[in-house]
Amino acid sequence: MIGAGPGDPGLLTIKGAEAIRVSDVLVYDYLVHPAILSHAREAAELVYVGKQGGVRSISQDEINELLVQKAAAGLTVARLKGGDPFVFGRGGEEAEALVDAGIAFEVVPGVSSGVAAAAYAGIPVTHRDHASSVAFITGHNGRDKRRPAVDWPSAACQADTLVIFMCAGALAEISAGLIAGGRPPATPMAVVRWGAHQHQEVYLGRLEDGLRPNKGITSPAIAIVGSVVALREKLRWFGPETEHPLGSEPDSPSAGRREYLEDQAPLDKLVAQ
Amino acid sequence: MIGAGPGDPGLLTIKGAEAIRVSDVLVYDYLVHPAILSHAREAAELVYVGKQGGVRSISQDEINELLVQKAAAGLTVARLKGGDPFVFGRGGEEAEALVDAGIAFEVVPGVSSGVAAAAYAGIPVTHRDHASSVAFITGHNGRDKRRPAVDWPSAACQADTLVIFMCAGALAEISAGLIAGGRPPATPMAVVRWGAHQHQEVYLGRLEDGLRPNKGITSPAIAIVGSVVALREKLRWFGPETEHPLGSEPDSPSAGRREYLEDQAPLDKLVAQ
Repeated sequence: MIGAGPGDPGLLTIKGAEAIRVSDVLVYDYLVHPAILSHAREAAELVYVGKQGGVRSISQDEINELLVQKAAAGLTVARLKGGDPFVFGRGGEEAEALVDAGIAFEVVPGVSSGVAAAAYAGIPVTHRDHASSVAFITGHNGRDKRRPAVDWPSAACQADTLVIFMCAGALAEISAGLIAGGRPPATPMAVVRWGAHQHQEVYLGRLEDGLRPNKGITSPAIAIVGSVVALREKLRWFGPETEHPLGSEPDSPSAGRREYLEDQAPLDKLVAQ
Repeated sequence: MIGAGPGDPGLLTIKGAEAIRVSDVLVYDYLVHPAILSHAREAAELVYVGKQGGVRSISQDEINELLVQKAAAGLTVARLKGGDPFVFGRGGEEAEALVDAGIAFEVVPGVSSGVAAAAYAGIPVTHRDHASSVAFITGHNGRDKRRPAVDWPSAACQADTLVIFMCAGALAEISAGLIAGGRPPATPMAVVRWGAHQHQEVYLGRLEDGLRPNKGITSPAIAIVGSVVALREKLRWFGPETEHPLGSEPDSPSAGRREYLEDQAPLDKLVAQ
């Protein structure tokens, strides 16, 4: 169970790369960078279980079953997940399925996308002058009935800094809820798309700007709310990124997406094998 | 600015190792595993700026000054921090000092100790059936006047899972505050010492057990509070660890510490150079 880290493939851990190298089968998700797969042995079987055209091509139960089946056949299986497997990665559920089937596993934690997207945007999620706590919250709220629903007004003051994963498509609802819960509308907010990728896009503004349509903000996107966001002005360091104002249409809304799809070409080839 | 990850030196990122390899100077902290330093070139200068005998040997301002001085002299400086530099690592402050001095920097995020200590204890910090949010909070509350104080009763319901960094010495205060804030006394709690190290110790119990003395729990220790902690019973996978009940004296309270000090021997030699 390996955390592949976020966009930058150099953020894979040494232990993760070694585990991939000795595996017979790689089972990997949408947000695993194609370069990560290059650590695999040539004979390794690559199984893509991520989204196809925006929708899940395989259910969680089917993924669990696949992992059990391959491992029960005596194969060493690397389960690769973007970011960390236990931070909104459903790694816990897959580990439970393995235990139920009597299959041994190890966890190789990864760099969480929330921490990395913020860092690549020049935002430290904690800071002695600004934030003694940071909350990681899923934005996949009503869309996943199994998960306990996030009550955004209650979440408003959950921590000094809020990092909201998978916020695309729910940004207006989230912003309205946080404001209703007492977070000032002028609170600095950044939304990072393709965090730590070469095509990273940062949408910068205030919480109230999240109320507007923001059509350019599609998945994958992570929102950061809190006074630490203002530190970006000083600490911005990642050259390749582009910046857009939050709450207005970007000049070229699909740029990051288009370029990423080009990156994915070798992956598509691998998937087709 | 490199996150060296937690106890297991294999959790350093590939990019972090490469950055160390090209650096002239390594400035590193207490919780950076000695094996991480082996990535350095032979000629690299190693500067230890962590605690000596439990107390800081050098102030934050002096560390900032050291980084600026070395970099201004034209040297490539690797600043190594345990875990992630922007999660309670003061990385933001050091980056500000660099910007003030006109020195360019990059951030290489690391695996956060909070996520990794939990994962190595068999605890997924989020889970669709248990937790839609996780808060990382510093336990270094009153001890650091510069930081906004954590109000533990308010923190009680900050998120479904609470991960409290640097909790040693404040566990009774934290537990009392969380119970006063409405977190049930029977909420599962684990305290992980030397997370992801070979000598990892897990203290397992309920929030109310945190009210007792727990003398064996000394630094470094991270507390995890929430129903996800109960998953450990099923998902425990890390062989070398030891388990103790929370709220009672361990049989050999100093074991982890003693063994760690032996590990540190090569580091002490390096420091003495």
